[in-house]
Amino acid sequence: MAKQITKQVFFSFIFLSVLLYQSNAVPSFHRKSLDLAKPCKRFIVHLHNVAYDGDNTANATSAAIVNPIGLGDFNFGKFIVMNNPVTMDENYLSKPVARVQGFFFYHGKSQYDTWLSWSVVFNSTEHKGQLNMMGENPFMEPTRDIPIVGGTGDFIMTRGIATFTTDHIDGNKYFRIKMDVKLYECY
Amino acid sequence: MAKQITKQVFFSFIFLSVLLYQSNAVPSFHRKSLDLAKPCKRFIVHLHNVAYDGDNTANATSAAIVNPIGLGDFNFGKFIVMNNPVTMDENYLSKPVARVQGFFFYHGKSQYDTWLSWSVVFNSTEHKGQLNMMGENPFMEPTRDIPIVGGTGDFIMTRGIATFTTDHIDGNKYFRIKMDVKLYECY
Amino acid sequence: MAKQITKQVFFSFIFLSVLLYQSNAVPSFHRKSLDLAKPCKRFIVHLHNVAYDGDNTANATSAAIVNPIGLGDFNFGKFIVMNNPVTMDENYLSKPVARVQGFFFYHGKSQYDTWLSWSVVFNSTEHKGQLNMMGENPFMEPTRDIPIVGGTGDFIMTRGIATFTTDHIDGNKYFRIKMDVKLYECY
Repeated sequence: MAKQITKQVFFSFIFLSVLLYQSNAVPSFHRKSLDLAKPCKRFIVHLHNVAYDGDNTANATSAAIVNPIGLGDFNFGKFIVMNNPVTMDENYLSKPVARVQGFFFYHGKSQYDTWLSWSVVFNSTEHKGQLNMMGENPFMEPTRDIPIVGGTGDFIMTRGIATFTTDHIDGNKYFRIKMDVKLYECY
Repeated sequence: MAKQITKQVFFSFIFLSVLLYQSNAVPSFHRKSLDLAKPCKRFIVHLHNVAYDGDNTANATSAAIVNPIGLGDFNFGKFIVMNNPVTMDENYLSKPVARVQGFFFYHGKSQYDTWLSWSVVFNSTEHKGQLNMMGENPFMEPTRDIPIVGGTGDFIMTRGIATFTTDHIDGNKYFRIKMDVKLYECY
Repeated sequence: MAKQITKQVFFSFIFLSVLLYQSNAVPSFHRKSLDLAKPCKRFIVHLHNVAYDGDNTANATSAAIVNPIGLGDFNFGKFIVMNNPVTMDENYLSKPVARVQGFFFYHGKSQYDTWLSWSVVFNSTEHKGQLNMMGENPFMEPTRDIPIVGGTGDFIMTRGIATFTTDHIDGNKYFRIKMDVKLYECY
């Protein structure tokens, strides 16, 4: 009798094990859950952009390499290359913790609108490596999400979202973006 | 005797559990299976591109911001910024469900060939968010696959493939691309 | 007695199973381990870049489509489109196994520095498909890591790192990059 029960337990165990193993083997592309409120890493940094105007070589951190082509009144076609300092607080004079290197361009015909692709590059004793963002950035919206699609070093293989807020604009001269970086894949 | 068998069952259970746990802990970068026929999300949309010719400001949806540089006869160096409507059917006049915002450029010296990076941006009551594609687009081929590397909103963290078919070209004025979007990571 | 033990075994089994299942269900965005020394695929290829100088149409594999804008002395703003052969060994005359198609630009104000986004495109009997890299490429450094963010065909959905070494530069005419491709997600 005991033996029989034991056998039963044993086989149900094997059965459940196989079941478990199969659930384990569910292909990775099936729908996965993601708790947006719980990134595996999160930090807020501030990007400072000082546009080149032809006279501010010492201070400029970005420059248009292609000018607007005249399609509409919202800079369509203006293409900007950046090499911007990134700080932990909002102060432009604070010590940079990273640089944002890459580009963005205007593509709005009837309103301001941009598209970007850039890297946040860390090279300090605390953090080394880059993380890479790309996508549509409708900067007239109060906030917008930009996909983070990869990284290296401390951010190797990472993915996530950066929520942008432009919290200061001074005409064409200067803007500051608060980047709320939320990583959902960390290694 | 029964006790002995029970013990045996118990230990083989523990052993198998550990085994199972370890198979579970196999690092995520090992070879994974992917059933290409079973995306977690799939849809087909149509992109319409009306090139700016200097006179069609009202209708144009894209424009060259850099002209061909004269290396070969296939537009090498021509760089186009787009802000194109995307519809569910092939009709240009149908209500757009999304916009494609980004760029592509020609890089063929002895044949037409392009490279692109752009976002499909949804902003309706049904879908919000962007998904981002980038890569080589040899548009003289009947179909080609473009990687989808990230997204936001309804497409947060997504990955997959878009299969492109250019199903209409009207000289330099207009082209339409059927985009068969297959996502293999959904959240 | 035997029955009791069996019961105990059975319940601890159920308990452990649930435990296992839950560990299995840990959301994918939690911190994952990655053994950098064990990519699921690895190979080394060599990219050859012959810059267009206005006279070498037959040999040129890349060309500037935007010239430096004069911000500093390090080509800031120079934007290059490439369609470069890739070989298995360092010999430029070896049969190409792939092409690198995409772009890079200079963004350094006080030193040489570039940012790139390009595809390694395979189209042979052995390999078909593209893999896509993007990010900061400080090419004055002896080596640098560039994120691989996606792919198609044999490289569908792949991710990883490419370690670049510029192992030959001949002024503005020619450079060769050794790309050590390490993929950590393979399908």
